Amino acid sequence: MTNRQVILASYVQGVPAPHNFSVIESEVPTPRSGEFVVRNLYFSLEAAIRSWLSGQTTYFEPIPLGGVIRGPTLGRVVESRHPNFDEGDLVWGLNQWEDYSLLNSNTILLKKIETRPGVPFSYYAGVLGGSGQTAYVGLHEIGKIRSGQTVVVSAAAGATGSVAAQIARLRDCKVVGIVGSESKARIITKELGVDVAVNYRETPDIAAEVQQICPEGVDIYYDNVGGKTLDAMLTCMKDFGRIVACGMISDYNNQSNPTPIKNLWKIVEKQLAMQGFLLPSFEKLIPTAEDALHKWLERGELRVLENITYGIENAGAAYCRMMEGDTIGKNLVQVASLDSI
Amino acid sequence: MTNRQVILASYVQGVPAPHNFSVIESEVPTPRSGEFVVRNLYFSLEAAIRSWLSGQTTYFEPIPLGGVIRGPTLGRVVESRHPNFDEGDLVWGLNQWEDYSLLNSNTILLKKIETRPGVPFSYYAGVLGGSGQTAYVGLHEIGKIRSGQTVVVSAAAGATGSVAAQIARLRDCKVVGIVGSESKARIITKELGVDVAVNYRETPDIAAEVQQICPEGVDIYYDNVGGKTLDAMLTCMKDFGRIVACGMISDYNNQSNPTPIKNLWKIVEKQLAMQGFLLPSFEKLIPTAEDALHKWLERGELRVLENITYGIENAGAAYCRMMEGDTIGKNLVQVASLDSI
Repeated sequence: MTNRQVILASYVQGVPAPHNFSVIESEVPTPRSGEFVVRNLYFSLEAAIRSWLSGQTTYFEPIPLGGVIRGPTLGRVVESRHPNFDEGDLVWGLNQWEDYSLLNSNTILLKKIETRPGVPFSYYAGVLGGSGQTAYVGLHEIGKIRSGQTVVVSAAAGATGSVAAQIARLRDCKVVGIVGSESKARIITKELGVDVAVNYRETPDIAAEVQQICPEGVDIYYDNVGGKTLDAMLTCMKDFGRIVACGMISDYNNQSNPTPIKNLWKIVEKQLAMQGFLLPSFEKLIPTAEDALHKWLERGELRVLENITYGIENAGAAYCRMMEGDTIGKNLVQVASLDSI
Repeated sequence: MTNRQVILASYVQGVPAPHNFSVIESEVPTPRSGEFVVRNLYFSLEAAIRSWLSGQTTYFEPIPLGGVIRGPTLGRVVESRHPNFDEGDLVWGLNQWEDYSLLNSNTILLKKIETRPGVPFSYYAGVLGGSGQTAYVGLHEIGKIRSGQTVVVSAAAGATGSVAAQIARLRDCKVVGIVGSESKARIITKELGVDVAVNYRETPDIAAEVQQICPEGVDIYYDNVGGKTLDAMLTCMKDFGRIVACGMISDYNNQSNPTPIKNLWKIVEKQLAMQGFLLPSFEKLIPTAEDALHKWLERGELRVLENITYGIENAGAAYCRMMEGDTIGKNLVQVASLDSI
């Protein structure tokens, strides 16, 4: 039995390309005392991984050349010498893009998944995982959302944005979604119930467009992209508006030369609050978020957008498509199915 | 008896110059029912006035060519047909740069001043007026200052910054002040008790300098200047740090082309909160601020930096010096003295 692993074949510059990745075969790990082995089922493709691919130190160690790609996965325990994890347990953790990962108590993000009947397992990587929880915590804790407000969400067809936009609708807000294609615009308005979509690629003046759609001003801007969209949105906010700084993906492919922001003085003039956050800092709110998201899913009030690529050999290419902004919803790579293992 | 008035002789471009202002003489106003006339004693020179001098509409009507300069003043009522204001009352309000102003109940910022014995009247325009109150509210309500924190204040020798820096010291914080000259650096360390001064004009890399002075990271950045200093400070913050966005004076002389900010992604990475505010939104806190500032003054714990120019004919030039960043402390123009009227 071999362990296929996706490694970093060359450092990434700009948008990642498939040749930056390659697949090798190595041995399946054997757990020592306190360790356990997980058969990975899904890789959760996340923008944050991009910052580990350039060989430069950020808040995390970079992945070395030839190193296995680090990323969160959903998997099932197949062999355990850990007292709290048994064969058959379903787990989430910051593992590697490989068939089999070796985990222990120190594995980052490690969490046992208690599935509920009727819920696809992949949802625990997206709408019921970090993406959905981030949307919930961002809108409630940072955005302090209230019914009747006007909410703008960027990357509104993305993993987090698509959930944020729907939560805003469920909270009885007017929702505007900013997206990068006509097909995304159609999906968020027809399937997610977003009131108005703005395709930034076809909109010469995003600020003027949003001001026309929201003449009352914007209460909450849920920002997944930063850059020019953030700069435009700074001019669209209501006095005392709140900017939920969830991500700045527009600069992730070019971190050494981020887009300059020119309208930051609007923060003073309009008395705005802009706040960044990362989900692990709001651990206490996660059960509340999980309950709410489960409830909305059960009632059919929350639509899930997923983009699943099959096969470990396609993981690199799938990641590249996501980082080009071409994909819709939560991006996953399925490396095995729950019933096949 | 004539009423000398400072008018806008030409629209200001960039840094204001003395020729943008001139003095004319007109008649002293006569109050009708509900109005009263104030003899102005001090003009409070404020950065916000700059945005009214270019002929462009901002959050306030621009001052037209030939119009009298609008600005807050301290004065004494000399004639009243208003039920609540009597001759001799001392008042603050958004008036004009002139010997005599006509006020009514709608005058913006209108406030009767209850002086306390031993306190110079000019203090009510600065440390006990908007500048000091802004510093207090900004640090407490927006910055949520706690003892033992590390606080950086920009324009730390300015009207608001000099008070903010001292409040941070009085709250037992480590205080770093950013200033634009060696004389300012000397004053804030020797007279205001600031721990370390950084002269940004002599510091090629502000971020590296502040990181060296504050290896523990910065809890609160009280920002009066925006621009390059803000961009540098974004890289110096502790996780969960707070940026009090009080002003962005570095761009006030060039508002159509503000300094681009490149490090805004630090807001996500470090989970920072950046919040703008304007004092009138925190009216309820003003009595608390006044009490605290009075108390510190009485105990001799708060030093007051004032730069008083004498004579209405020098008001324009005094304003220009302030907007060049050459002055220290609260800038006032004294147009008459309390005992001479």
